[in-house]
Amino acid sequence: MPQLDDLPTPALVLDLDRLEANLDRMAERAAALGVRLRPHLKTHKCVEIARLQQQRGARGVTVSTLYEARVFADAGFADITWAFPLVPSRLDQALELARRIDLGLVVDSPEAVAVLERSEASLAVFLKVDCGYHRAGLDPESSMPEKLAWRLAGSERLTFAGLLSHSGHAYAGRASCLPAGRQERDVMTGLADRLRAAGLEVPVVSVGSTPGMAAIDHLQGVDEARPGNYALYDWTQVRLGSCEVADCAATVVTTVVSSSAGHSVVDAGALALSKDPGPAGDGGFGRVYADHAAGRLEPGLRLTALSQEHGIVDAPLPVGTRLRVLPNHSCLTVAQFDEFHVARGERQVDRWKIWRGRD
Amino acid sequence: MPQLDDLPTPALVLDLDRLEANLDRMAERAAALGVRLRPHLKTHKCVEIARLQQQRGARGVTVSTLYEARVFADAGFADITWAFPLVPSRLDQALELARRIDLGLVVDSPEAVAVLERSEASLAVFLKVDCGYHRAGLDPESSMPEKLAWRLAGSERLTFAGLLSHSGHAYAGRASCLPAGRQERDVMTGLADRLRAAGLEVPVVSVGSTPGMAAIDHLQGVDEARPGNYALYDWTQVRLGSCEVADCAATVVTTVVSSSAGHSVVDAGALALSKDPGPAGDGGFGRVYADHAAGRLEPGLRLTALSQEHGIVDAPLPVGTRLRVLPNHSCLTVAQFDEFHVARGERQVDRWKIWRGRD
Repeated sequence: MPQLDDLPTPALVLDLDRLEANLDRMAERAAALGVRLRPHLKTHKCVEIARLQQQRGARGVTVSTLYEARVFADAGFADITWAFPLVPSRLDQALELARRIDLGLVVDSPEAVAVLERSEASLAVFLKVDCGYHRAGLDPESSMPEKLAWRLAGSERLTFAGLLSHSGHAYAGRASCLPAGRQERDVMTGLADRLRAAGLEVPVVSVGSTPGMAAIDHLQGVDEARPGNYALYDWTQVRLGSCEVADCAATVVTTVVSSSAGHSVVDAGALALSKDPGPAGDGGFGRVYADHAAGRLEPGLRLTALSQEHGIVDAPLPVGTRLRVLPNHSCLTVAQFDEFHVARGERQVDRWKIWRGRD
Repeated sequence: MPQLDDLPTPALVLDLDRLEANLDRMAERAAALGVRLRPHLKTHKCVEIARLQQQRGARGVTVSTLYEARVFADAGFADITWAFPLVPSRLDQALELARRIDLGLVVDSPEAVAVLERSEASLAVFLKVDCGYHRAGLDPESSMPEKLAWRLAGSERLTFAGLLSHSGHAYAGRASCLPAGRQERDVMTGLADRLRAAGLEVPVVSVGSTPGMAAIDHLQGVDEARPGNYALYDWTQVRLGSCEVADCAATVVTTVVSSSAGHSVVDAGALALSKDPGPAGDGGFGRVYADHAAGRLEPGLRLTALSQEHGIVDAPLPVGTRLRVLPNHSCLTVAQFDEFHVARGERQVDRWKIWRGRD
């Protein structure tokens, strides 16, 4: 196996020591908070990483697409929550999968419940609840969660699996992580209490976001958490205070291929790093390491623009210089590559497939 | 083959009638301008489309990565320009490929020329020239182009293939297309004239961008053009005036999966559409069709935000509604999918692989 210095660029490198430390830390954190960990695999889409999470006690996994669900089912994962509002045109695919594994579905509308009722299939169904992010989910103050929960509970074949939320508003900034995590917990446990008081069984209260998990003070009343990004972290999580630069496990190795008076061009563009703009007002599409081993960035050096395969670095550097870049958003960066170059320090020790397919 | 209405979403649809019309039109345009067409395949990464371009007289093709070069070489394309500044760590791969096809390489620095000189391989090398875009390329007013051209011409094995540019500054806005195209032409032909006056042979003057090709008045002195986006077009090209909405050949079919008072959530997020922000100041990550057959958008309806798999549409629409979305930037959207659903009207007639791999 080569040294990282010998890899053709651009290359996505996974630092195995940092990954393992991140997985250990979140497993301990979940245990300390008294919740089961059901990691979201959309971040890494990698069977080997999911197995490391399972070895550390993960109880089931979370995915964002049915393609991911099938990949991990085929790899032996038998308890998967598809944490995305049901896509009606994928119902047949979901049913096929639900016959061979425990598949949890998610809905947040009477229309979606009606689709499931018509299917006459046995399915475990979560109600998605808006815990303050206001992207998707039922209004917890409305009568709809109870109505739909009763419909699911009263169905012959469907099962009301519980309540599920995502505290995406924790990403608004460092000051938002704790309040968003608390709001999510309080909204979800409050709603679960009201449903239970009305006579419903609420088997699972499921919450989740990496910054929420990093910041939260307690999770009493919550059963499981579904963070995903924590496996790899990224510049956004550094800025949110979820981690340090030295914790970030996924980096892109790139080469200066052109240089002029004011800037350099590297071979990592939008199809390597993604055009995720990162933390609001922060500027740039990736940060450059001064010393990866030390977890230290080069102050002021960043990718300022990306086109398809070109990245612009705001300094004139010699052609041939190799840089290591910390992405803004590891989930989107990983999904641009077919494999991780898995490294211990500067030595590549393996290559792991990224199941980034769609269908 | 199913109707498009039956496809599981999100799905990338290629309108074959529009594609063919686009390819015809650009072939005629190149002929009228008196230049050979060497289409850039990075837009579609699809062998079937490249063959349609070849059938319409394309003379060689252009790619942005060596992975693409290998894919199209394996598919029988024997004349390929890798229009990206040489990545030194990929030299061995380039040499392997150059043994079996005509591979054109691109450099814009003495360092890159030195890498090639040390390789002792037979390679055809273009000099990349900055024609006003100021991303990469040699300063045409400097002495460097002539110096490097002499080095290439004097090398035992290397061949000076000509001058190559990309008028990316044509993307600055509708008013920029013609001036940028003219500047590119004049800079390139002027430099070629000076090199020839100095005694150098300049076999090829190669320019290229879709908006430049759409706007340019003449290309006298230019030998070939390398537009790519014109095969599919997108919202950015509509705004630049390169095409009409009715010409755009690649769309994403998506489903409303969640709906609230002010917005809807669809299943096309950043990993379907890409986070390309589109034309400057325009806002939005995709436009929604009112009537795809008529090439008419729904005024005011757009995707206002994207997360990994979620898209936000700025209107409350019933769950289950299927929408067809015109992407901001088809090159980046296509690269998020594994295949085109190829359609005549509303009927799927084929599925074509998108070679979006990296390595």
